[in-house]
Amino acid sequence: MNALAGSDAVLWTRVEQSLMRQGLMQHWGVRLLRVARGEVELGLHYSDKVTQQQAGFHGGAMGALADIAGGYAALTVAAEGMEVTTVEYKINFLAAFSGGELRATGRVIRAGKRIIVTTAEVAHVDKAGTVSACAVMQQTIVPVPKTY
Amino acid sequence: MNALAGSDAVLWTRVEQSLMRQGLMQHWGVRLLRVARGEVELGLHYSDKVTQQQAGFHGGAMGALADIAGGYAALTVAAEGMEVTTVEYKINFLAAFSGGELRATGRVIRAGKRIIVTTAEVAHVDKAGTVSACAVMQQTIVPVPKTY
Amino acid sequence: MNALAGSDAVLWTRVEQSLMRQGLMQHWGVRLLRVARGEVELGLHYSDKVTQQQAGFHGGAMGALADIAGGYAALTVAAEGMEVTTVEYKINFLAAFSGGELRATGRVIRAGKRIIVTTAEVAHVDKAGTVSACAVMQQTIVPVPKTY
Amino acid sequence: MNALAGSDAVLWTRVEQSLMRQGLMQHWGVRLLRVARGEVELGLHYSDKVTQQQAGFHGGAMGALADIAGGYAALTVAAEGMEVTTVEYKINFLAAFSGGELRATGRVIRAGKRIIVTTAEVAHVDKAGTVSACAVMQQTIVPVPKTY
Repeated sequence: MNALAGSDAVLWTRVEQSLMRQGLMQHWGVRLLRVARGEVELGLHYSDKVTQQQAGFHGGAMGALADIAGGYAALTVAAEGMEVTTVEYKINFLAAFSGGELRATGRVIRAGKRIIVTTAEVAHVDKAGTVSACAVMQQTIVPVPKTY
Repeated sequence: MNALAGSDAVLWTRVEQSLMRQGLMQHWGVRLLRVARGEVELGLHYSDKVTQQQAGFHGGAMGALADIAGGYAALTVAAEGMEVTTVEYKINFLAAFSGGELRATGRVIRAGKRIIVTTAEVAHVDKAGTVSACAVMQQTIVPVPKTY
Repeated sequence: MNALAGSDAVLWTRVEQSLMRQGLMQHWGVRLLRVARGEVELGLHYSDKVTQQQAGFHGGAMGALADIAGGYAALTVAAEGMEVTTVEYKINFLAAFSGGELRATGRVIRAGKRIIVTTAEVAHVDKAGTVSACAVMQQTIVPVPKTY
Repeated sequence: MNALAGSDAVLWTRVEQSLMRQGLMQHWGVRLLRVARGEVELGLHYSDKVTQQQAGFHGGAMGALADIAGGYAALTVAAEGMEVTTVEYKINFLAAFSGGELRATGRVIRAGKRIIVTTAEVAHVDKAGTVSACAVMQQTIVPVPKTY
């Protein structure tokens, strides 16, 4: 195993340990798909736990998934012993979809010591594998000491 | 029953019918607390369905609740035969809380024919009844024809 | 002069000294109208320095004025020896106006040691004194050591 | 001249005619650098018309430039006879710079008939040509009938 893979494995564990503790994410069955320095991808399968009034994925589910993808992207660049907390985010919804799954990719735009800025893209993947843009998010994160 | 109460009862039904169709909100047990023209309040009890990694209410849950409160405030001022869809929102998190419940109050700031602007405040209420600010949101809504 | 008035006078000076150093604000002729703990109001008269393509006040001018009003509201609650810098803001435009003046009022929503959250309202005042809402802003500020 | 160049020339004129009418942009000396379908780049040289209290480019100037770059990117995809108006934007500031110039690039993310979503990146270019990220913006635009 080379240094980079080793590093990515450490990052994967760091993110996974936090994700496993999130009741909301566990309840929805959110899966960790990819972890690299500054970038994290999550997946969320369609179910009636995440729908709005027209049976599409709920904006709140897209928002939560984007928030977490951006936050975990930030976690991969935070100093050791720190975790991260969301100061704020802003999300634009582009289209609504039913069925299939959502994939949210968070990316670090700026990693400061006090403030980390990220973006996230939420895409829909239908059963045939067609990918469509769902939402874009811009987010502000602060590193905070890990207390657990 | 006076005219105002009649009007509020109509608004209540309009909001409730939509809320009942939202799988996400039903799953979390979100309750409709108050409906008036331009203002809607929702409640969400604490459970492990809505927690983050430190056992506090998940930002995603606060975001979804604020989004819905703002959206339903907009619905109370939308023309008949229309429902509403969220174009975007931006939320700032002010503090984290465990236990008790969240209350989100959405308010219409500007009701245009094409664009409705709202804000929402999310507060935490602990078991002793102490109310603390959790999050503030600013949101853009568009009315769309109701299709169900 | 009572203690409160003294306090407000100190706050006024703190804000005014910073405002006088802002080339952009001086160039536009922005005036300081009111300073209290957690609240600052600014005024900007209409001129061709601040118009968009339809001769209304430019969104960029509303945005800058709101940003500064929120930032100075934050400055009134920042620790001594600190100034403030804007991490991000989000602004919704409600209506466009020509002539008269803009008034932006910034208010502190949450004053943390690391993060200060503010809102601002921008109103238009026409020559007859009629006040109309123009824009609402939500903003994240960090205190930073003053270096000048 | 091929069809694409012809099309880009038409887009250039469409954007330039609007930009020339903006008092704020003319006053600052904002220059149109690049126009393509869905993408517009603007430049703003440093001067004391656009500074904040530490002599860096003012956040208000970055915000206005980003707003206009995103708005004009939207204009390049709007139907004929329409112009565009900003519903809202959110901007994160990444770093402060003095001297040189700002370049803002707006890009259309989603071109709907009623709503156009854009992003913009603001970069600083110093006298040696070094490019640094300054700000990122996410924006909601609506097409409106052109009245001039």
